[in-house]
Amino acid sequence: MSSNNCYDVTTWPVGNPSEDVGEVINSIIADIKDRQTVTDANNGGKPGAVIYIPPGDYHLRTQVVIDVSFLRIHGSGHGFTSSSIRFNVPEDEWPDLHELWPGGSRILVDIPLGGDGEESKGAAFYVERSGSPRISSVEFSNFCIDGVHFNPDGSGMPSENTYVNGKTGIYVANANDSFRVTGMGFVYLENALTIYNADALSIHDNFIAECGSCIELRGWGQASKITDNLVGAGFKGHSIYAENHGGLLITTNNVFPRGASSVHLDGVTRSSVTNNRLHSFYPGMLILAANSSENLVATNHFLRDHEPWTPFLGVDNGLNDLHGLLCVSGSNNSVIGNHFSEIIDSQSIRPAGATPVIIRLMAGAGNFVSNNHVVALDVHSESSDSCFSAQVDALLTTEASDALAVTAVMVDSESARNTILDSGSDAQVIADRAVNALRATPTVGFQAAHALVAQ
Amino acid sequence: MSSNNCYDVTTWPVGNPSEDVGEVINSIIADIKDRQTVTDANNGGKPGAVIYIPPGDYHLRTQVVIDVSFLRIHGSGHGFTSSSIRFNVPEDEWPDLHELWPGGSRILVDIPLGGDGEESKGAAFYVERSGSPRISSVEFSNFCIDGVHFNPDGSGMPSENTYVNGKTGIYVANANDSFRVTGMGFVYLENALTIYNADALSIHDNFIAECGSCIELRGWGQASKITDNLVGAGFKGHSIYAENHGGLLITTNNVFPRGASSVHLDGVTRSSVTNNRLHSFYPGMLILAANSSENLVATNHFLRDHEPWTPFLGVDNGLNDLHGLLCVSGSNNSVIGNHFSEIIDSQSIRPAGATPVIIRLMAGAGNFVSNNHVVALDVHSESSDSCFSAQVDALLTTEASDALAVTAVMVDSESARNTILDSGSDAQVIADRAVNALRATPTVGFQAAHALVAQ
Amino acid sequence: MSSNNCYDVTTWPVGNPSEDVGEVINSIIADIKDRQTVTDANNGGKPGAVIYIPPGDYHLRTQVVIDVSFLRIHGSGHGFTSSSIRFNVPEDEWPDLHELWPGGSRILVDIPLGGDGEESKGAAFYVERSGSPRISSVEFSNFCIDGVHFNPDGSGMPSENTYVNGKTGIYVANANDSFRVTGMGFVYLENALTIYNADALSIHDNFIAECGSCIELRGWGQASKITDNLVGAGFKGHSIYAENHGGLLITTNNVFPRGASSVHLDGVTRSSVTNNRLHSFYPGMLILAANSSENLVATNHFLRDHEPWTPFLGVDNGLNDLHGLLCVSGSNNSVIGNHFSEIIDSQSIRPAGATPVIIRLMAGAGNFVSNNHVVALDVHSESSDSCFSAQVDALLTTEASDALAVTAVMVDSESARNTILDSGSDAQVIADRAVNALRATPTVGFQAAHALVAQ
Repeated sequence: MSSNNCYDVTTWPVGNPSEDVGEVINSIIADIKDRQTVTDANNGGKPGAVIYIPPGDYHLRTQVVIDVSFLRIHGSGHGFTSSSIRFNVPEDEWPDLHELWPGGSRILVDIPLGGDGEESKGAAFYVERSGSPRISSVEFSNFCIDGVHFNPDGSGMPSENTYVNGKTGIYVANANDSFRVTGMGFVYLENALTIYNADALSIHDNFIAECGSCIELRGWGQASKITDNLVGAGFKGHSIYAENHGGLLITTNNVFPRGASSVHLDGVTRSSVTNNRLHSFYPGMLILAANSSENLVATNHFLRDHEPWTPFLGVDNGLNDLHGLLCVSGSNNSVIGNHFSEIIDSQSIRPAGATPVIIRLMAGAGNFVSNNHVVALDVHSESSDSCFSAQVDALLTTEASDALAVTAVMVDSESARNTILDSGSDAQVIADRAVNALRATPTVGFQAAHALVAQ
Repeated sequence: MSSNNCYDVTTWPVGNPSEDVGEVINSIIADIKDRQTVTDANNGGKPGAVIYIPPGDYHLRTQVVIDVSFLRIHGSGHGFTSSSIRFNVPEDEWPDLHELWPGGSRILVDIPLGGDGEESKGAAFYVERSGSPRISSVEFSNFCIDGVHFNPDGSGMPSENTYVNGKTGIYVANANDSFRVTGMGFVYLENALTIYNADALSIHDNFIAECGSCIELRGWGQASKITDNLVGAGFKGHSIYAENHGGLLITTNNVFPRGASSVHLDGVTRSSVTNNRLHSFYPGMLILAANSSENLVATNHFLRDHEPWTPFLGVDNGLNDLHGLLCVSGSNNSVIGNHFSEIIDSQSIRPAGATPVIIRLMAGAGNFVSNNHVVALDVHSESSDSCFSAQVDALLTTEASDALAVTAVMVDSESARNTILDSGSDAQVIADRAVNALRATPTVGFQAAHALVAQ
Repeated sequence: MSSNNCYDVTTWPVGNPSEDVGEVINSIIADIKDRQTVTDANNGGKPGAVIYIPPGDYHLRTQVVIDVSFLRIHGSGHGFTSSSIRFNVPEDEWPDLHELWPGGSRILVDIPLGGDGEESKGAAFYVERSGSPRISSVEFSNFCIDGVHFNPDGSGMPSENTYVNGKTGIYVANANDSFRVTGMGFVYLENALTIYNADALSIHDNFIAECGSCIELRGWGQASKITDNLVGAGFKGHSIYAENHGGLLITTNNVFPRGASSVHLDGVTRSSVTNNRLHSFYPGMLILAANSSENLVATNHFLRDHEPWTPFLGVDNGLNDLHGLLCVSGSNNSVIGNHFSEIIDSQSIRPAGATPVIIRLMAGAGNFVSNNHVVALDVHSESSDSCFSAQVDALLTTEASDALAVTAVMVDSESARNTILDSGSDAQVIADRAVNALRATPTVGFQAAHALVAQ
């Protein structure tokens, strides 16, 4: 029914895309499979297809199931707007708002979740194919997946602030190769993007915000990249998470609050977290857990400050200030050339009176921590009813602040044979000098003594 | 008049896109607003639209005014070609040229500037909407905005070399969220891209060259990114400029001459300038001014050499060689792992006989300057009538050059409590050792003394 | 014949795109030139065009010759799937496979190579135009170029594993400006992308794998960028190669095996190789040759381990373990903040019993090697018939490994006046201390002696 493998959800004869774009897309995929049955006919046969979603609102009531390679689904607008801000505007002010909802090529996820709560059931796009070869080159580009509403979670938090609704944007269940997610918008989903067993995956230049968790690479995988995204999860979830990956490149991302972590790696090896801007309201920003080893953490900008927005005051991730902004349980990692700003009100430190920790080596051996710069300021924090101006004010505030004493690097007894260079003054590094090599950052007066020796 | 929110400027019934694409696009925007009036109808209602500009020449005589969210304007070609080179080819050779003008999906900005000289009046695309929410998710992609000609500036400079014409490509006047500028081309505009009060803006993979100023983020803003662009402003202007931003990520850009600066930050905090390649013909390449603090400047490649192209010989930005290539007026910044190449003719140094400065800390406190490598060579510079080959020749020239004495780091008395590590030999660092911590880069012979001590 | 400069290969009246898309595209280019003859008509005239390739299989039997600026060729799917894995699956299992070939908007290169073996003759897309100005703003986006088969090379290697077939994806023969290659897929070509004399080229976000060589920038050039690509060449070729370039930015790439090198620079100056993830099965991963100088090599992750996949066991690039993973023949380069993992079976070291070298300075002077972290483990390697799982297993394996003695930095006598800081213990650095400055990475016990001195 398509002569050139190009489909448009608004012109496809089956289903009504406004009412259920899932039914429409599944019908298109069935058509692709009906037409592309022969392979190896003159070295070809199953080229796949492209499905276009024009700007518009499309309810999705039937889960899309993708089991063909070379399928590209694209729209003409990532369509993000802040639902979180709007839902925290009194409803009697809504008539004064220019618009209420996200837009662009917008999928409204409206799936009747099953009673069993199985996570994959709540996915708008579900990719599943077993057998060989692995499903390849599925691409999602430049449209918006909107979960529309969050639900009560029993905590007393207003329902639209819970980040809970059982909905996932894209869920890839099986081993896959050379997938692409580019230019997309994700908003108000409990999980934006969940991908198992990825090889050579590219998640590039997306806008993923106000979702419970944003990017989760589960199972295992290799040689993928998460680059140049704007990302910010909810307070319960992950902005960027990966487990059992090797050769993963996480770089050039701007990760904003309020994820429970900014980047969380579990059993990840020989990977890079470099050149990102990470901002969080809690400790535990970058976590290398479960023997994550031989990774490079370099030239990232870490900022931890306080929640400035009234609706989320008092919310945290349960970690206290001794946990560290960067926490390493693993071996032979490199932590080089990062900037850390800890801008907090000393009255808020937990446990009260503690000295906050910036880099913490919890377990493992052989980590190399070098040339990191820690800035810590004690500020009187203020909150605001305006999310945006509060955040900007907080970001730009450096006036009227005092230096705050911190532990730049703390090495637990379970971690040994680490090398710590120029990442804190002698007093700012807590480590057993008998089993770790330390060169403290020189302070004024060092030069004189040094010069004496070197001459 | 559009059934699926997709418009094409060449098929829209109002106006003539070749004569005035501005009138056409404004008519389309009016249509969008006429059709999309209801909001909250079943959680939707104002999805926006996409406007397509096919390859072609489109004069723009009426300013486009954008006041709707979720509008995507895209073309099929960024269309850059060097107008600067062509305008400096004798006109009697023009008939021999394959083509004379930029191309692709090309907007020729031909706006009758008002007599009041108001900058925003000269903008081809003017985005303005007050009230709530902030205008969101406007996208510009893959077309060309061409100012066509520069004007005389009274200096005697040939008019096409002045970088002055009062024209701006895109001007965003109000607070905005999640905008995207991707894959665009900008050429021969006095200002390519001027954006006030940006939140989560992405300026990615554009070609912005031969404009007076290229990217200016004004007002204030947060959590934005300027990534993976090819950028080069005119000698009077900014290649990349931001003021009062926090959490800005400027990375992976290739910034070429001849901007008065490569990156200029004014009151910018907790931001990153990392991993860029910066090339300039003048001092003052990267400026952190007006108490820009807690920023990370890491793993950038700085090259300062001489103007090789005859038409611009003798032009400069007014700064002498004591100003520094990187100038910091601010506190608690991190300057880590950068490479600096200063490749100049010692006869050209101003003031004559001075020792050029590479990194200069002008005011502030607590900056951390570590592991920067300075290369300085004294070369006999040559100019050429051929822009391209002259530049390539200059870039590749390392032969027949002598070492040039430079001050790697100069700390003014207004800046204190800085830490300077491994960024220059003892003789190359000018700083008050009583108030700044210094560890000079070891030179040959250091090892012997050091080994003596450590054993 | 096109009213708005938009073409579709499936609707163009000349030729049959399935049988020979080359004939179709050449006919379209002829049409563009027929229609766009006048220039300077009201500051315009030759805007170029866009050619669309819908998803599908298109044989290319006639070379496409591009000699017009502002031409954009784009598809709707990069279409990569692993042909290498499939060709190493027994053919009697092929009927069980979901699909056999790459897909998306797929060009099958089927060019009758001339008897003279001239490389450019085998190019699917050949860009050639002399005269002025340089050809500008040609763009390739989001389609697949597939060489389909490799040929016997006389070595006894199965023909589909040779990486030899005389086919090139895109070959640019002349000086060019502001080209773009974005979102493309390249597979089973002897050369994917060969570009001479590039200025302000952008190669961004492509998938280039299972090609003999992937990206080669030849001749000379400046101010280009190779960013955010997934790249992996064959064992004989280059993943990323450049010669005589200045101001080249190679960053944010994930380069996987099995290229003879990951990045090879020949006479390249004032360029950056930063923030990449590089993985190889052989020494000689990053080569700065032929007086490549003043480059910045920073915050890259290098992993060298063993070929795990049975079909390529025993293949190598001919370099032994003394060659170094990073080899520098040039001056004044900066090597800062890189992580190196050498994960090999000590029984495999060549020459047997040698101590493998990580960074080797072969010739030149004035290089600055600082803050690099070397991890070396001796593992018992295992191979597998499954390419993917073998690689993942290998990447994640850190158990049951012992430390391996390596030379972190070796400085040959032809290289002098280098500075080597914190990049290996005293025993791990082989350099003439009389002509190179060395500060060894501190080891446990250093702190005590140091503290004694500094106080």
